[in-house]
Amino acid sequence: MKGIKIVTIGGGSSYTPELVEGFIKRYDELPVRELWLVDIPEGQKKQNIVGNLARRMVKKAGVPMEIHLTLDRREALKDADFVTTQIRVGLLDAREKDEKIPLKYNVIGQETNGPGGLFKALRTIPVILDITKDMAELCPNAWLINFANPAGMVTEAVLRYGKIKKVVGLCNVPVGMQMNIAKLLEVDSSRVRIDFAGLNHMVYGLNVYLDGNNVTNKVIDMITSENPSMTMKNIADFGWEKDFIKALGIIPCPYHRYYYKTRKMVEHEIEESKKDGVRAEVVKKIEKELFELYKDEKLDIKPPQLEKRGGAYYSDAACNLINSIYNDKKDIQPVNTRNNGAIASIDDDSAVEVSCVITMEGPRPITVGDLPVYVRGLVNSIKSFERAAVEAAVSGDYSKALLAMTINPLVPSDEVAKEILDEMLQAHKKYLPKFFKE
Amino acid sequence: MKGIKIVTIGGGSSYTPELVEGFIKRYDELPVRELWLVDIPEGQKKQNIVGNLARRMVKKAGVPMEIHLTLDRREALKDADFVTTQIRVGLLDAREKDEKIPLKYNVIGQETNGPGGLFKALRTIPVILDITKDMAELCPNAWLINFANPAGMVTEAVLRYGKIKKVVGLCNVPVGMQMNIAKLLEVDSSRVRIDFAGLNHMVYGLNVYLDGNNVTNKVIDMITSENPSMTMKNIADFGWEKDFIKALGIIPCPYHRYYYKTRKMVEHEIEESKKDGVRAEVVKKIEKELFELYKDEKLDIKPPQLEKRGGAYYSDAACNLINSIYNDKKDIQPVNTRNNGAIASIDDDSAVEVSCVITMEGPRPITVGDLPVYVRGLVNSIKSFERAAVEAAVSGDYSKALLAMTINPLVPSDEVAKEILDEMLQAHKKYLPKFFKE
Amino acid sequence: MKGIKIVTIGGGSSYTPELVEGFIKRYDELPVRELWLVDIPEGQKKQNIVGNLARRMVKKAGVPMEIHLTLDRREALKDADFVTTQIRVGLLDAREKDEKIPLKYNVIGQETNGPGGLFKALRTIPVILDITKDMAELCPNAWLINFANPAGMVTEAVLRYGKIKKVVGLCNVPVGMQMNIAKLLEVDSSRVRIDFAGLNHMVYGLNVYLDGNNVTNKVIDMITSENPSMTMKNIADFGWEKDFIKALGIIPCPYHRYYYKTRKMVEHEIEESKKDGVRAEVVKKIEKELFELYKDEKLDIKPPQLEKRGGAYYSDAACNLINSIYNDKKDIQPVNTRNNGAIASIDDDSAVEVSCVITMEGPRPITVGDLPVYVRGLVNSIKSFERAAVEAAVSGDYSKALLAMTINPLVPSDEVAKEILDEMLQAHKKYLPKFFKE
Amino acid sequence: MKGIKIVTIGGGSSYTPELVEGFIKRYDELPVRELWLVDIPEGQKKQNIVGNLARRMVKKAGVPMEIHLTLDRREALKDADFVTTQIRVGLLDAREKDEKIPLKYNVIGQETNGPGGLFKALRTIPVILDITKDMAELCPNAWLINFANPAGMVTEAVLRYGKIKKVVGLCNVPVGMQMNIAKLLEVDSSRVRIDFAGLNHMVYGLNVYLDGNNVTNKVIDMITSENPSMTMKNIADFGWEKDFIKALGIIPCPYHRYYYKTRKMVEHEIEESKKDGVRAEVVKKIEKELFELYKDEKLDIKPPQLEKRGGAYYSDAACNLINSIYNDKKDIQPVNTRNNGAIASIDDDSAVEVSCVITMEGPRPITVGDLPVYVRGLVNSIKSFERAAVEAAVSGDYSKALLAMTINPLVPSDEVAKEILDEMLQAHKKYLPKFFKE
Ligand SMILES: [Mn+2]
Ligand SMILES: [Mn+2]
Ligand SMILES: [Mn+2]
Ligand SMILES: [Mn+2]
Repeated sequence: MKGIKIVTIGGGSSYTPELVEGFIKRYDELPVRELWLVDIPEGQKKQNIVGNLARRMVKKAGVPMEIHLTLDRREALKDADFVTTQIRVGLLDAREKDEKIPLKYNVIGQETNGPGGLFKALRTIPVILDITKDMAELCPNAWLINFANPAGMVTEAVLRYGKIKKVVGLCNVPVGMQMNIAKLLEVDSSRVRIDFAGLNHMVYGLNVYLDGNNVTNKVIDMITSENPSMTMKNIADFGWEKDFIKALGIIPCPYHRYYYKTRKMVEHEIEESKKDGVRAEVVKKIEKELFELYKDEKLDIKPPQLEKRGGAYYSDAACNLINSIYNDKKDIQPVNTRNNGAIASIDDDSAVEVSCVITMEGPRPITVGDLPVYVRGLVNSIKSFERAAVEAAVSGDYSKALLAMTINPLVPSDEVAKEILDEMLQAHKKYLPKFFKE
Repeated sequence: MKGIKIVTIGGGSSYTPELVEGFIKRYDELPVRELWLVDIPEGQKKQNIVGNLARRMVKKAGVPMEIHLTLDRREALKDADFVTTQIRVGLLDAREKDEKIPLKYNVIGQETNGPGGLFKALRTIPVILDITKDMAELCPNAWLINFANPAGMVTEAVLRYGKIKKVVGLCNVPVGMQMNIAKLLEVDSSRVRIDFAGLNHMVYGLNVYLDGNNVTNKVIDMITSENPSMTMKNIADFGWEKDFIKALGIIPCPYHRYYYKTRKMVEHEIEESKKDGVRAEVVKKIEKELFELYKDEKLDIKPPQLEKRGGAYYSDAACNLINSIYNDKKDIQPVNTRNNGAIASIDDDSAVEVSCVITMEGPRPITVGDLPVYVRGLVNSIKSFERAAVEAAVSGDYSKALLAMTINPLVPSDEVAKEILDEMLQAHKKYLPKFFKE
Repeated sequence: MKGIKIVTIGGGSSYTPELVEGFIKRYDELPVRELWLVDIPEGQKKQNIVGNLARRMVKKAGVPMEIHLTLDRREALKDADFVTTQIRVGLLDAREKDEKIPLKYNVIGQETNGPGGLFKALRTIPVILDITKDMAELCPNAWLINFANPAGMVTEAVLRYGKIKKVVGLCNVPVGMQMNIAKLLEVDSSRVRIDFAGLNHMVYGLNVYLDGNNVTNKVIDMITSENPSMTMKNIADFGWEKDFIKALGIIPCPYHRYYYKTRKMVEHEIEESKKDGVRAEVVKKIEKELFELYKDEKLDIKPPQLEKRGGAYYSDAACNLINSIYNDKKDIQPVNTRNNGAIASIDDDSAVEVSCVITMEGPRPITVGDLPVYVRGLVNSIKSFERAAVEAAVSGDYSKALLAMTINPLVPSDEVAKEILDEMLQAHKKYLPKFFKE
Repeated sequence: MKGIKIVTIGGGSSYTPELVEGFIKRYDELPVRELWLVDIPEGQKKQNIVGNLARRMVKKAGVPMEIHLTLDRREALKDADFVTTQIRVGLLDAREKDEKIPLKYNVIGQETNGPGGLFKALRTIPVILDITKDMAELCPNAWLINFANPAGMVTEAVLRYGKIKKVVGLCNVPVGMQMNIAKLLEVDSSRVRIDFAGLNHMVYGLNVYLDGNNVTNKVIDMITSENPSMTMKNIADFGWEKDFIKALGIIPCPYHRYYYKTRKMVEHEIEESKKDGVRAEVVKKIEKELFELYKDEKLDIKPPQLEKRGGAYYSDAACNLINSIYNDKKDIQPVNTRNNGAIASIDDDSAVEVSCVITMEGPRPITVGDLPVYVRGLVNSIKSFERAAVEAAVSGDYSKALLAMTINPLVPSDEVAKEILDEMLQAHKKYLPKFFKE
């Protein structure tokens, strides 16, 4: 018997131990026999450190999972069952630029939103599309489980331009919301179910059920009266205006702060960047410490310090998704997939983030009907932006990139858009071959 | 023979001579026998001045049009054929607040957009809905031709909550665009046709035809290469980033500057307000001068100085619409009306501004299909806002008003939204009975 | 601990032992403590026979399930968890008329299709709507699981006019298709999944998966080359024209024969009716025999002879549905529920029969996108008919009934529609109080 | 100055004098300088007769319109402004088969509906698509005005597979309905306007306006109480069941009799065919007489006998359409064009027959919203059929043809469909090269 072959592209990431732990925990029902960690030459050092830690973890756990390390993506992809992508084109240096340059213009500097999100898309999408070409050839039946951000735009790009059809985009935001709401309700998270709908990093909880009963209004009351902490490691924990949330009637995600509290978030980012540096700088430090830890030959479990890194539940989300596809679990998970009519005001062939039942045929969206009219506009604004960003990424067309930048709700003017665009194009030149063809 | 009876609510407006001139010019095909100028006690003085000018104009023209002045709306409405509304609840003082208060928060201060647009809606909608009640009783077959701003939200409100069905919202923005584009093409405007679609003050020219041939790309090239002046009296004439417009592929309206050039417009407004005061203050001066002119008993035509006031083509738009309905002209005019499927991504029962063929049954929208994906988001954002604003205006619900304010794309944060809301509610208290019930 | 209370309206039905057996089998995970069999005075004798058999079955199985018999529906409904309806207004005599009268006009005589289906709807819908009134009062949180035919129209009626929202319509057709296809593929039915979409008794299998792989084309090849028996007890087993099914590309249900083989089916029905009588007459005989068996005090299991009756898998479908709601199983079952965007060309608020994931919040439809264009017409024809039939049933309006009859695809002319309508109205007068008000 | 060049393919048709008269009448505003009558060798004799009559008509009228006769289609098309197609592939012999063969199976034998309509589509579509190829090359800016039946399916085919975009399908059914309703109301037809929506030969009048007032209910009352003659030359004048039309609430077209009175129409056709022969046979006789008349060198006007032929208003419809495009008349005409959202439940890119405002940019559909739910099914059934028929015509695929035949609402069974299909394929073999490739 062969078992499952998993290929993780960007395998040298500090998140990998999460994934390894996830596979170890689930080994009985999800027998991963081969885990291939693929990386690029610049990442080889980290790949080795993480790879060795992974091997120690596997050994300690006593499961027969082989850990393969390679720089040859095509060698790894051959006959894979699942391919996970957790790449960061340009590494944390690029993220630092994504976060810093917009701030100079008093514009949100963020990895997946605003100008930073656009550039991350421009750098990442061509690489992922290349991976789908290899997959179509080497493992045409495999699922691509993409964690690489911006996961929504990457999924949109693969749905429209990818060479494979089996793709899912994954994010830990919805599961984080579920955990926070469960905590708020003081119940185990397994008793809570939420109808998620929207886009990646712009997802709403439309209804909350506790033991099958709709408790949305109660949760909204609690959110507005108790002002609980409901955010993520990388997003400042500012509460919402109570009457606003009350009238909204549904539950925004932490990233909505960038849109509904833009001014406060920009001010906060500028302040923070002066104090501790931007998030990339913070993360660099954490990563450095993590890799020091990972080097320790005595370490054979996922170190608890990894939690600071910010990807809480990512491993669980990923392993659960793979597990549910593999075992036809039919549980309900929010993922990024082809809309197919789930949300009426978004095109059928666009990517949405929506609660799906996960079967061995992949995720099947549960119908939403339409989004409440009050959020339809913002969600469609981001989809307009995503569509323009994907076109820009695929074509390398300057005017499409300026269009994407200008229509992004976080960018306040076409002139500012152009200035930021020009500066960021230069800064990321090395990773934007489509824009700088010889 | 009885001829047409027209009732103009807000008849004391400085615009009225435009309308009178329009009816005089068209008398042969559009025989207006009675024009009733209705106003409120606070406006009686102006009403008298304007009414007398109107009478002199009619006399000079030699047409048998009776000018009636009254403060009794119900008396006037009896058996009307067309009711035009050009009211300004709270007069220019209220507009001044709409323009000034948001600026304190570095937010666009504008009559029909952003917080100012919201408050103009909150003040105006209940009054217009009251008028529809009277109309349902006194002239159930009359058409309501609404010029009162914000015309889009007023139309939305009448479609959802009005007691009559025959309503059209009117704006001079599209006709202004047509004039500007004709000038750019150096042709007579009658040879140019534009497919207009969107919302009031957020309308796009999707296609431009010259003598039946699609010249959209040519016009976009000219706009991006010649940077022509294409704006209105009340909107700063900043050009567009060329590559942005090129990629957009359609023609925005002057008001789009508030959305695509927000930062520049706020800065400009703040500067202007320090120099000449906000637009309301400028207009007050113009109005004062106009009414001085109007008083002159020798004046018996529309004085040329009226053009400075800013309502270019309003009279033509209004008279043309009435004429086309009355005479079943079947020409194509952009008006605010029930969508009915014209724009796919907007609800059938919402108001849109779209090219319609004007028949004796009223305006019939021409199908658009859907808006280009790159503008679908922004247009739907404004529709989300408009829907919330209408709910707030009808209910007087504070949280709905905060929702509307927060989701408006020009308002940068829920906290800022709340601060502006609270200050403006106090400032406009007198005209917001729904929000300040005893 | 209280356990589950189930109320079965029409509890004297010969199907009840199926249900009882289903609950007994699942007792461990689905602890039904009270089963109330409700019937009307005309059915009391059968109710007693079935009730006593049920008690013997429960006793034999050794489960603590109480069997209650009552003629007082309201007494039974109090605090119910699930209400199942399996009523037959007018009993088999009415069905006999539904089947015989249309045949006189050379029109399909069938219980749920054509004129018979219309009259079954006219008789049944008012009774079910009455039940929902009682439920809203006595057990507002209970689920209504309706087996009463025509299940699609009954669900449509409850969704539009019912006093409760928790309703599911149930049919054994899809599960039968799955069994037949599994048999065809020679695999266990648990390995087969089918995307079902359409309406009740007009449902298609859009995709067939075997172990997660799409084998639709293979199944269609097998159907066209092997011409397997794929029908139900009450539908003549005529094969399809191969090229027709090949071009259709999806799998019709047994009832589609009435639409795609209308002439053949009418001829066959006429022939059969001369030989063995219509189906109601056959069933009457079977029922009589069954009740003789049920009387046997030694019988304490479901007698195997029940299978001839035609409701294969009904019990399984019903018990599985209740079990999945109760235990939040999240398995995928095809049921009749609110469309909510699952099928694009059908209104959101109409009933459809579609694969749903069954949760403790009820069935959640999985998105279909749209039906293939070649079947969109027929499915919408039936929905047009169903909508007219529901309006007729609720209003008792003669012209609405004639409209429904005329637009039914099985009725060949408005004159014939009127003749059949008039004859059937008289025949069923007793059960159509809305049409014969004093 | 050059004037307008019109090319009429199938110019030898007996209808041509209608067209010539239409152009003569409108010469002042629509200066047709060249009219090219194109035909095939088999039609040359008739072409000469009609051509000579046309020349005499032109001479008599004293207009400088040149009549050109040619068998060389490409020569004629060069630089055309409008191309009209009135071809009949296989001539009246083919029509006779379309009408006779289905009758053998007790199925409607009709030129544009049922099996006859399918075969007319299979013969005609490839020829029209070839014409669009020539047009794309020789007169890319010309409008194709197609009268060739089945006009709906031909338009659908050109929209999906044609090499040009400027196509309109034309039918005289709606204008006939308008005339009949005006007669019923005893008013001049110019005072009546009807919102037409549906498909070709399946169009409904949704609203009727008299002088701008909605009189639909009044018209329906008159139709149901007076049972007026409202049909066309080729369709038996059977009245509707009153309660059916009352509940329908909109006005069906004469062809709807084939669907709502199928049985009666089949019986009538069989009877007629025994008496006077099928319609093709009647027409053949009329045509023969007409051509005898046309030959008369003294005839220099359109002979009144042409009216018997059945194409009443065709010439007016065609000339009005061309005139309105040429002169940007912006009047409202019902034509077959791309839906583009006019009817919600039909795909945007499908052909519909709908009221359009006719501009120099072509017909622009007026929004309908959606069809009333009670007719949505039938209309979509025909669209399903049309889509299958177009696919069959373009591909020559037997199974697609069987699919189209089976799903046609007039064909009662897949077996019958196959029998008719097989017999008709053989009968029309000569004109179906796609189905009989060597
Ligand atoms: Mn994420
Ligand atoms: Mn305006
Ligand atoms: Mn059933
Ligand atoms: Mn026709």
